[in-house]
Amino acid sequence: MAKKQVKKPKTITKGKETPKQVAKKLENIGHQMVKEIGKGLDPHFKTQLRGRSNVEFDEKRGILTLGDKETTRTFLNIGHAKKFMQTTMIAAKTRDYLNHNKTASIREIYYELKHTVPNSKENTFDGQTESDGVIVDLEHSVDTIREKLNLHANPKGTLYGDITLKDKMHHNDKFNCAKLGRGGWSVMSRLEPEEIEIVKVNAKYVLVIETEAMYERLVEEQFALKNKCILVSTGGQAARGTRRLVHRLHKDEKLPVLVFTDGDPYGWYIYSVIKQGSMALAAHSDYLACPDAKYIGMTLDDVETYELQNVTEKMKDGDIKRAKEMMEYPWFKNKEWQRQLKKALKEKIRIEQQALANKSLEFVAKEYLPRKIKEEDFLP
Amino acid sequence: MAKKQVKKPKTITKGKETPKQVAKKLENIGHQMVKEIGKGLDPHFKTQLRGRSNVEFDEKRGILTLGDKETTRTFLNIGHAKKFMQTTMIAAKTRDYLNHNKTASIREIYYELKHTVPNSKENTFDGQTESDGVIVDLEHSVDTIREKLNLHANPKGTLYGDITLKDKMHHNDKFNCAKLGRGGWSVMSRLEPEEIEIVKVNAKYVLVIETEAMYERLVEEQFALKNKCILVSTGGQAARGTRRLVHRLHKDEKLPVLVFTDGDPYGWYIYSVIKQGSMALAAHSDYLACPDAKYIGMTLDDVETYELQNVTEKMKDGDIKRAKEMMEYPWFKNKEWQRQLKKALKEKIRIEQQALANKSLEFVAKEYLPRKIKEEDFLP
Repeated sequence: MAKKQVKKPKTITKGKETPKQVAKKLENIGHQMVKEIGKGLDPHFKTQLRGRSNVEFDEKRGILTLGDKETTRTFLNIGHAKKFMQTTMIAAKTRDYLNHNKTASIREIYYELKHTVPNSKENTFDGQTESDGVIVDLEHSVDTIREKLNLHANPKGTLYGDITLKDKMHHNDKFNCAKLGRGGWSVMSRLEPEEIEIVKVNAKYVLVIETEAMYERLVEEQFALKNKCILVSTGGQAARGTRRLVHRLHKDEKLPVLVFTDGDPYGWYIYSVIKQGSMALAAHSDYLACPDAKYIGMTLDDVETYELQNVTEKMKDGDIKRAKEMMEYPWFKNKEWQRQLKKALKEKIRIEQQALANKSLEFVAKEYLPRKIKEEDFLP
Repeated sequence: MAKKQVKKPKTITKGKETPKQVAKKLENIGHQMVKEIGKGLDPHFKTQLRGRSNVEFDEKRGILTLGDKETTRTFLNIGHAKKFMQTTMIAAKTRDYLNHNKTASIREIYYELKHTVPNSKENTFDGQTESDGVIVDLEHSVDTIREKLNLHANPKGTLYGDITLKDKMHHNDKFNCAKLGRGGWSVMSRLEPEEIEIVKVNAKYVLVIETEAMYERLVEEQFALKNKCILVSTGGQAARGTRRLVHRLHKDEKLPVLVFTDGDPYGWYIYSVIKQGSMALAAHSDYLACPDAKYIGMTLDDVETYELQNVTEKMKDGDIKRAKEMMEYPWFKNKEWQRQLKKALKEKIRIEQQALANKSLEFVAKEYLPRKIKEEDFLP
């Protein structure tokens, strides 16, 4: 793989509006409604239709996208009225956040806006799923991502390697993630370029790792420094902040991304979400997906190659169901993955990353990963 | 609370052996066995009896401890033979780790040692619970903790605030955890003084927080810097590395510890484990517990004080069961906690930390925590 030294980050392709501009877009929704009411019309709100019927796989770009089916909600439709109210509440509140430079988690905005409507027994929101849904509507409506509405999900994930970040919202702290001991940097929920600048990266590629324990192993083996790579652990399914970080390293810093998970449908799905994006957030693949990512392991072939039969486990029912679903996904419709998924369904075994310790603790860092990288022995 | 500026860490009270000395202790187990075999005797291995029958609550010290009941395993007892073999395997392997300066997670050592015994269908270990149990036996046998056997659990947790750490095992990296942007330092699984030195702390107390999202809120509100405290998020039940860190700040750096969790039995149990230790690891409370920790919230009284009735949730069956159990624990047998637990069982509601956003995003940092701290409105 090509060597890479980057000093300055490039701007991202989409969503370059300033917070003030996003706030303006939200205000416009309100102005439009007020205008309609003034004219005696039923106020309306437009968003994209979500759900599988409007999710498409863009083969050319290798990412999931949302089709252009739209849906319109009107206030005087009794089936829409509550959602209409919820949408205006979230729009008004996120506009406040943007104007006052505040950010909130999606759980906080739910709690902040939840109350009983005066003179009624009706709650504004009956659960976080309701506010989460409205947030996605609003993202589509103003063509942005929640982070640019100053909302975010919970953080998770760790970063290690020769990469210098600057937090422009926190005293312009500048720190190198190879110099924080073996712990590394705790990845924030917000990884927008306006907040976190990638000052410098000195690496040949990014290795995304499913488990924190494997991340610790590779740090102890000095894998990142010896192989000039960046380590990102996801701790299971990657949080949005972590996906955004990997995306930026991939798109803006032009680093190849290799994904290393357990050898089971859950791990392969983690890979798929990093590479193509997820169905639930199909509209945001431009911000989150890494279409050129490659899968380095574990595979069921590794079990044979490295004689790991002793340390496999039985697949669970959930894994079997997921493997069957995955066989039907267009982005797994290639020879290599179909073979892998069929093998899983036939043998009904899974293999964990940490099972490589059966060879020796150093094996993963000294033999397994280097050989795969040298021979480019990846799945697409 | 007293102001605190510490420059040099003090040594911990127990477990001061060097890795070589611990390795020697492990070797002695082997020498003893060889001697017994040489004399034609049945080799044996002694450890402390675990399980509730041998767990005691030390009222005076305010921590859970293990009683002095012992158990002896002999090789020629058919019921003990497999465990005997497992113990010698783990002892030999951890001795290797210590002599070669390697560390491993408890999952890795399981995988490393798992294999089929030649000429049999018998596996050395049939699941990680088997190796985990043997590790605890060994800890007791050589009177130490797993970290000093170079073993550890998975990492989890984040650290933020004016504290400078040095990782002696990683280029002597020195870093201040208030200068890593808003992400903070990802707490390692290993927090032993031989590896991570606390170079300097400039704080009046430690605030331990259950959720990562509340941690992010307090960082955004600059709570740590304005109130001169250290923030530690546990992300649910605290991992051992995080407990060890809080313990060291408490015992060695003499900082008061305040614990802030959701207002439900699960959150209160998180508090209890940080304060008194856990039953499963009762023998290690000296390394892990913070007997003078105080509970700052959430309580069910907060629901009334701050009119949060709208944003409570129903207690789950598991919460109810746990609350009933907790009422019987000696360390919850005080007026305040009995009242709180009874209230929970009567009202069957729970309240999340983030529900404070119902007042305003800033409320927790500007009113809730400062008032409780000023008035020392804590539970014991």
